[in-house]
Amino acid sequence: MKIAVLGTGMVGRALAGRLAGLGHDVVVGTRDVEQTLARTEPGSMGTPPYADWQQANPAMRLVPFHEAGAHGELVLNATAGAQAMAALEATGASNLTGKVLLDLAIPLDFSQGMPPQLTVANTDSLGEQIQRAFPDTRVVKALNTVFVEVMIDPSRVPCAHTIFVAGDDTGAKEVVKGLLGEFGWPAEWIIDLGTIRAARATEMYMQLYFNLVNVLDTFDFNIAVHRA
Amino acid sequence: MKIAVLGTGMVGRALAGRLAGLGHDVVVGTRDVEQTLARTEPGSMGTPPYADWQQANPAMRLVPFHEAGAHGELVLNATAGAQAMAALEATGASNLTGKVLLDLAIPLDFSQGMPPQLTVANTDSLGEQIQRAFPDTRVVKALNTVFVEVMIDPSRVPCAHTIFVAGDDTGAKEVVKGLLGEFGWPAEWIIDLGTIRAARATEMYMQLYFNLVNVLDTFDFNIAVHRA
Repeated sequence: MKIAVLGTGMVGRALAGRLAGLGHDVVVGTRDVEQTLARTEPGSMGTPPYADWQQANPAMRLVPFHEAGAHGELVLNATAGAQAMAALEATGASNLTGKVLLDLAIPLDFSQGMPPQLTVANTDSLGEQIQRAFPDTRVVKALNTVFVEVMIDPSRVPCAHTIFVAGDDTGAKEVVKGLLGEFGWPAEWIIDLGTIRAARATEMYMQLYFNLVNVLDTFDFNIAVHRA
Repeated sequence: MKIAVLGTGMVGRALAGRLAGLGHDVVVGTRDVEQTLARTEPGSMGTPPYADWQQANPAMRLVPFHEAGAHGELVLNATAGAQAMAALEATGASNLTGKVLLDLAIPLDFSQGMPPQLTVANTDSLGEQIQRAFPDTRVVKALNTVFVEVMIDPSRVPCAHTIFVAGDDTGAKEVVKGLLGEFGWPAEWIIDLGTIRAARATEMYMQLYFNLVNVLDTFDFNIAVHRA
């Protein structure tokens, strides 16, 4: 499938690499290609410069957001939450019309220290904001509840565990479930939480997630939902 | 142990009954004893009148909040979140000084329909508000992530699953962990999330919880944290 990954950080890179490895036709979208490639300092989380990763993945194409949008039949929003809306506007509503947008961004606010707060919570969510701003795009919130290495390889966590999808468009959720399957998520580990309103639930879970990161001292964890 | 359960709803009753069954010296606290016993209509969730339950549990003592506070060495806040602060003020700071207060209330706001929103989230939590309002009380947030029947009998959910504690006072958390053990929670299922700040994490998880209630169509569920 033709896939566009928006965002050049740790999450975007890992997803793009994994998707290319699965045989998809992947491009990575960024605001300014030259600027992204020219950066030599590590990112805020100590992520090496994108150029290093590009060198290790020479076949990967880095393109401006709007070109990525035009390329992707499926578009992944892997930008930092605070930049998500600007990145999607640069991608262009017309490039996103009718397409499945897998939104895995988290609206984190690190200004008050760790664990981060959210820039939007309780009465709204980033997923809902995106769906409202792009009403002709089929937004699905998923994968935002686990670390990127777990997203693309759920076997890193022992036992069965759970991943959530939320979105208004059933067909779009099926596309995303298919992608999750390719990453290694068995269908029975996937819980469909309902409409995009439930993006609020998985984004607000981030508060517990970051507490658990701190307590468990690892990102290789996840929750499993068990029922009677 | 002398235990006070604040709150006469479904949660307070189940906890009080279970604790009495375990041999504890339990009282239930309410704002106005006569009014609570006089009520004949079911509660908002269809809960039968307290008087019915009192009749079925004749040994249980229903007392005003301040009397409950004076009785309890351990105090459980099982009030509805919106009433929690008023109930604790009626219980009295002097009655709560130095004591362990297990806060399992959730600041739910049903005014916008289901799933409920929270009256406080992201930048604060009910647990933190209570600890700030009663600085000489040893507040522990726990048990608020599961339905009351699961709180008092974790075997209702198959497989190992997880319960969280959060609070500033290590000794108080040990008291609560002991109580969880009596309810049937093995020590290895309990995760200490750290200070009372983490009440925010478990309260904000409620958004996912209520989505799961809806999707799973049962309250008999919980999450298990699995790590590599």
